[in-house]
Amino acid sequence: MPIEKARIIDDGRAVDLTWTSGEKARFHALWLRDNALDGATRSANNGQRLITVLDIPAASRLSEAQVSTNGDLTLTFMPERKSVTFPAGWLVNHIYDRKSAPNAGWVAPEIETWDGGLAAKTPLIAHERGKTDRRAFGHWLAGIRRYGFGVMTKVPTTSGALIDVARMFGFVRETNYGMWFEVRAEVNPNNLAYTNLGLQAHTDNPYRDPVPTLQLLACLENTVEGGESVVVDGFRAAERLQAEDPSGFALLTRHCARFEYAGSAGVRLKSKRPMIELGPDGELIAIRFNNRSASAFIDVSYEDMEGYYAAYRRFAQIIEDPAMEITFKLKPGELFIVDNTRVLHARKAFSSSGSRWLQGCYADKDGLLSTLAAIEYGQKDAA
Amino acid sequence: MPIEKARIIDDGRAVDLTWTSGEKARFHALWLRDNALDGATRSANNGQRLITVLDIPAASRLSEAQVSTNGDLTLTFMPERKSVTFPAGWLVNHIYDRKSAPNAGWVAPEIETWDGGLAAKTPLIAHERGKTDRRAFGHWLAGIRRYGFGVMTKVPTTSGALIDVARMFGFVRETNYGMWFEVRAEVNPNNLAYTNLGLQAHTDNPYRDPVPTLQLLACLENTVEGGESVVVDGFRAAERLQAEDPSGFALLTRHCARFEYAGSAGVRLKSKRPMIELGPDGELIAIRFNNRSASAFIDVSYEDMEGYYAAYRRFAQIIEDPAMEITFKLKPGELFIVDNTRVLHARKAFSSSGSRWLQGCYADKDGLLSTLAAIEYGQKDAA
Repeated sequence: MPIEKARIIDDGRAVDLTWTSGEKARFHALWLRDNALDGATRSANNGQRLITVLDIPAASRLSEAQVSTNGDLTLTFMPERKSVTFPAGWLVNHIYDRKSAPNAGWVAPEIETWDGGLAAKTPLIAHERGKTDRRAFGHWLAGIRRYGFGVMTKVPTTSGALIDVARMFGFVRETNYGMWFEVRAEVNPNNLAYTNLGLQAHTDNPYRDPVPTLQLLACLENTVEGGESVVVDGFRAAERLQAEDPSGFALLTRHCARFEYAGSAGVRLKSKRPMIELGPDGELIAIRFNNRSASAFIDVSYEDMEGYYAAYRRFAQIIEDPAMEITFKLKPGELFIVDNTRVLHARKAFSSSGSRWLQGCYADKDGLLSTLAAIEYGQKDAA
Repeated sequence: MPIEKARIIDDGRAVDLTWTSGEKARFHALWLRDNALDGATRSANNGQRLITVLDIPAASRLSEAQVSTNGDLTLTFMPERKSVTFPAGWLVNHIYDRKSAPNAGWVAPEIETWDGGLAAKTPLIAHERGKTDRRAFGHWLAGIRRYGFGVMTKVPTTSGALIDVARMFGFVRETNYGMWFEVRAEVNPNNLAYTNLGLQAHTDNPYRDPVPTLQLLACLENTVEGGESVVVDGFRAAERLQAEDPSGFALLTRHCARFEYAGSAGVRLKSKRPMIELGPDGELIAIRFNNRSASAFIDVSYEDMEGYYAAYRRFAQIIEDPAMEITFKLKPGELFIVDNTRVLHARKAFSSSGSRWLQGCYADKDGLLSTLAAIEYGQKDAA
């Protein structure tokens, strides 16, 4: 979209732009200078900035603003007498001159919250297709970005195959549980996950900071009765809590909870983070919820503690509402992945007859989102 | 410290305790019930909680409070008619009934901020001693927890030795740069780190979310002129900014910055996080600062942008103040570790004659802090 008009305002401190579409926005001289795209400001090799904020004169002003025939913008910065061209499309994609900030609890536009109705739309891919069809793989990853949940089928039922799946998009986060861990009923379990008890919907390892942002669970054997897997969108649960009880929502975001794990020798993990984490701009960025590893909350004031517990209880009720759940029974060769900062998973109790053998591992979202962005960027290039 | 007196208050909703030391605190019935330490509430095996918040009656009240002869507290919860004993020491360690919340920008008590004067107190250990002397190793790790910085000497100068160092306390965070990466001047670098340019003090990979929380840099060869390493305590810099310019500090905490890296094929990382991150309770928890990978800030309002840039500039000036720096030149066999959520590192430019070969890797604080806590716990047990 070309720029139609550029007008220097505030004694050269900013420029006021109008695009041919009618869109309008102001940009500051300092911001523009810092984000100049020329070869002396940004490395042509790798895109990194070559200057620091201290290399930019504090008194930077615009002395000239010209719209070229193709609608791009050329600015002259004083006192450097430096002339820089900004593509019209780049500027429209980086507008920060907006009317109002969103309310606390907003989610990013690439995210869609869900309840049990998502089941039919679960992002699904077969292992071999994910390996060979880049477009289909990108589509699956985009589904995981959107819903925080996805399923892969026809995964080899060999031990450790989930590590190869994680490496299709990123890197495994090794922990005290290993590169991967066995989820089987054990006699002396160091974690209740390694029993045949049901587990309340939870996020994994909230006692770790940084928390692992992705979890993969692959099924190798499953002939027990029960043992169904359940996933719940923690972001939807937080939205429901906020709608029903705004002050309870505020309490869970404003106060830190505490979590800990010391179930094995040599391991004493603990963290202090809120159950519902907002960014400084109110964006909903993470859920931590785990009855097994919650430790005593000592960062909530005496005055707020009863309200905090009431909100915690209501949040748990929403999470356990069957309307929120997708329930499925993993078959050998099936693997599911969750965004562990958002989607809770649960397990129903299972019989001691038969065998149930899952393997789990952790990974991080940065790798997944980077791989997805690179696929999308390649497709845009090819289009 | 024994309890002297226990008085049920608010119709059984809470109990008011006085210790023999004169310390006083109130605890709610709901909180106490949730944190009961009996075998039906907590697994004796692994310490995990066996019940969920929904298993606790919302109307839980205390009907009886008795101080035993050793000063511990036994409570009876209604309507469950459940009797639970709480050690006096456990309760005093978990008091949440406090007068007032600290001001924004506070740091945890186990942290001490520093300027260049720390140089003489740098946590230091020889590789072999770290391997063989558990107490000395714990002391070194405690120094890293306190200062976010430590040095190891006499590390084998074999390629990849830093991975073994990371495994002494935790786990490597593999990324697109590999399990570890070579820091050497290259002809077509995909990152300015791989040149002989100076690098402004920065935290690594702020474009990654979660950011790697520890970085290790080991020296294998260093015969160039220049190339000194510099470290700066970002928490101290934030404290200085807050003292000098509280509203600038608030702007850097309240608005998200953006970071990105797309220097290699198949990699497009980006993040949206503040330069100075506070917990919801105002605790200073992370610094992100990197001129090379900062992208256009589009989450700051038009009205705040000039103030934001002024604060960013002032923060950079404080970070570059020589009084803030520890400067040293790594010798072969020396390795330094920084808390990458807190301590910035820089490199001075170096000559093209001679060779400078470092290797770097990332790891996470949860593993380091867990290993340290286990060592400290073992020492307490032995004491």
